[in-house]
Amino acid sequence: MQRLALTRISADPTHALDLQSAAEPTPAPGQVLIQMEAATINQTDLLAAAGQYFVTPTPGATIGSEGVGRVIAVGHDTDTALVGQRVALLATYRHGTWATHVVASPDDLIAVPDDGDALQLAMLGINPMTALRLLRDHGNPDDPDRWIGQTAANSAVGEYLIKLAHHFGHRTLNVVRREHAADDVRGWGAEHVVLDGPDLDDAVTAALAGDTLDIAVDSVGGPASSTLGQHLRYGGTLVTYAAQSGQPPALSQADLIGNQASLTGFWLHNWWQRTQLATSREEYRQLVDLIGDGTLSARVDRTFPLANWRDAMVAAQAPTGAGKLLFTFPDN
Amino acid sequence: MQRLALTRISADPTHALDLQSAAEPTPAPGQVLIQMEAATINQTDLLAAAGQYFVTPTPGATIGSEGVGRVIAVGHDTDTALVGQRVALLATYRHGTWATHVVASPDDLIAVPDDGDALQLAMLGINPMTALRLLRDHGNPDDPDRWIGQTAANSAVGEYLIKLAHHFGHRTLNVVRREHAADDVRGWGAEHVVLDGPDLDDAVTAALAGDTLDIAVDSVGGPASSTLGQHLRYGGTLVTYAAQSGQPPALSQADLIGNQASLTGFWLHNWWQRTQLATSREEYRQLVDLIGDGTLSARVDRTFPLANWRDAMVAAQAPTGAGKLLFTFPDN
Repeated sequence: MQRLALTRISADPTHALDLQSAAEPTPAPGQVLIQMEAATINQTDLLAAAGQYFVTPTPGATIGSEGVGRVIAVGHDTDTALVGQRVALLATYRHGTWATHVVASPDDLIAVPDDGDALQLAMLGINPMTALRLLRDHGNPDDPDRWIGQTAANSAVGEYLIKLAHHFGHRTLNVVRREHAADDVRGWGAEHVVLDGPDLDDAVTAALAGDTLDIAVDSVGGPASSTLGQHLRYGGTLVTYAAQSGQPPALSQADLIGNQASLTGFWLHNWWQRTQLATSREEYRQLVDLIGDGTLSARVDRTFPLANWRDAMVAAQAPTGAGKLLFTFPDN
Repeated sequence: MQRLALTRISADPTHALDLQSAAEPTPAPGQVLIQMEAATINQTDLLAAAGQYFVTPTPGATIGSEGVGRVIAVGHDTDTALVGQRVALLATYRHGTWATHVVASPDDLIAVPDDGDALQLAMLGINPMTALRLLRDHGNPDDPDRWIGQTAANSAVGEYLIKLAHHFGHRTLNVVRREHAADDVRGWGAEHVVLDGPDLDDAVTAALAGDTLDIAVDSVGGPASSTLGQHLRYGGTLVTYAAQSGQPPALSQADLIGNQASLTGFWLHNWWQRTQLATSREEYRQLVDLIGDGTLSARVDRTFPLANWRDAMVAAQAPTGAGKLLFTFPDN
């Protein structure tokens, strides 16, 4: 087997990682061995290797959080019916997925159909569930025609959120920073796309036409988040899951005190750790179905074989906004 | 009658207001006439006269939000049993209380006992209910031994909050900016008082001894609020009701995303407007009882007759931290 292992914590992943060969691992009791098909390259993997994430891997650990593959062996006292099952690996930070073979716990796997797209299924673990939780766990999810505002609408989470929101009947107001990104976002069915900049507040006002946002979802921080915050309903919520601009999101005192708006944050792993396994698995199964029927997908920019991992890391450090990067394992 | 009327919006209340004489008003149907005993001078009254509050009075309006007095007449078709009743006037922004006589709706009044302290009862409307709502409507109020953190602990809301929290069994961690204020706060029974400054985080850590805050209550903004925010439990709330420093309160991305902390705000009038009258009246009656038995009180610095209103406004613009200012009406 081959794997990308952390050699030292570094903000430059080409210095932090090394491609290593090893004997195919043997799953311990209660574990399974997965032959990988594809593994997503997430920005959070680079942050983790840089020691800048909520979880910091130990040198020697395999990097990578999620992916898709097939169970080819099980440990002693482990359900042999799992052998042959195609599975998505969830981001539980108990295994690294940038490897041809991964040992994992069945609790960290979701069965996926044999005919599903490997790249789309490899991305199941993080971005689509983040979008689903942002929608289901904030504001009034039972109000079907509520408005959802979001920054970075052309991100992968943004794409999933638009598609999920439309699936549920919610209206979305999408902020992007460049006109060509607006075209992408409109292509996903978003009716209301506005450009960040000095006219953002006017554009949001015009798009809402007197309505207010139930929630605003932010991964940028800074002025755009505050502008969306000004258009929240009384008691509405601005929820952040990243701060790409380096500036934290902010609500004004007028919005906080006068409009009882709230600012909060979301990290998927907190949800996973605090949710009954049966519940989280059922939520993931719903996403598998929505990926299977084409309701949900995210753009893929490029894929890399593990041997070209340095190219992959260079590309990952300069996101183009054209879609996700993944490792694929064609020799598996 | 005499009253302090707004003549023009101005940040200097001695320019915004004027003492006017008029005939004693006649209550309209559904209204009552109150002969005033005392009326609180709140900073929010000055902000309103400056056009810097959530409600802006119209020139000609009587200023002042709350107070205590006695019903001396009722309008046509209005319960005559109210005549002679001593009442506290709530801050519903439908009457001005800086006047010898005030016409108000019975819905905006709470009956108070004849033997209660006029100054303490005059302050019933805003500060003690703000403290009660901060405690009851945020975090886990049913966890009796939870920790409550607060900045500006030596404010009137801070004093009510400490006394209410101890009444409910909660533990309080109180931040003050000066040592002599710490002595005041300890005098109210607060066991944990820490000084704002570069050592605040260490002092909070030491006081909590491994525990976390269920909620943090802030009226200062800036670094002290963020420091308390770092000590919130998972899912804890930082709630702001003012920003004396001019800096908004802030939670770090690590606290928002990693610890799912929330930042929100509270304005009493929002609660009043959205609460059934029977419910809000019952909550006020509980506070009347707690004021009556001495559980709740706030320090009074000075009182002024209406004739000395200019002195009162000068004093109100330079808060000493020694307690509240009130108008009294000794000729009534």
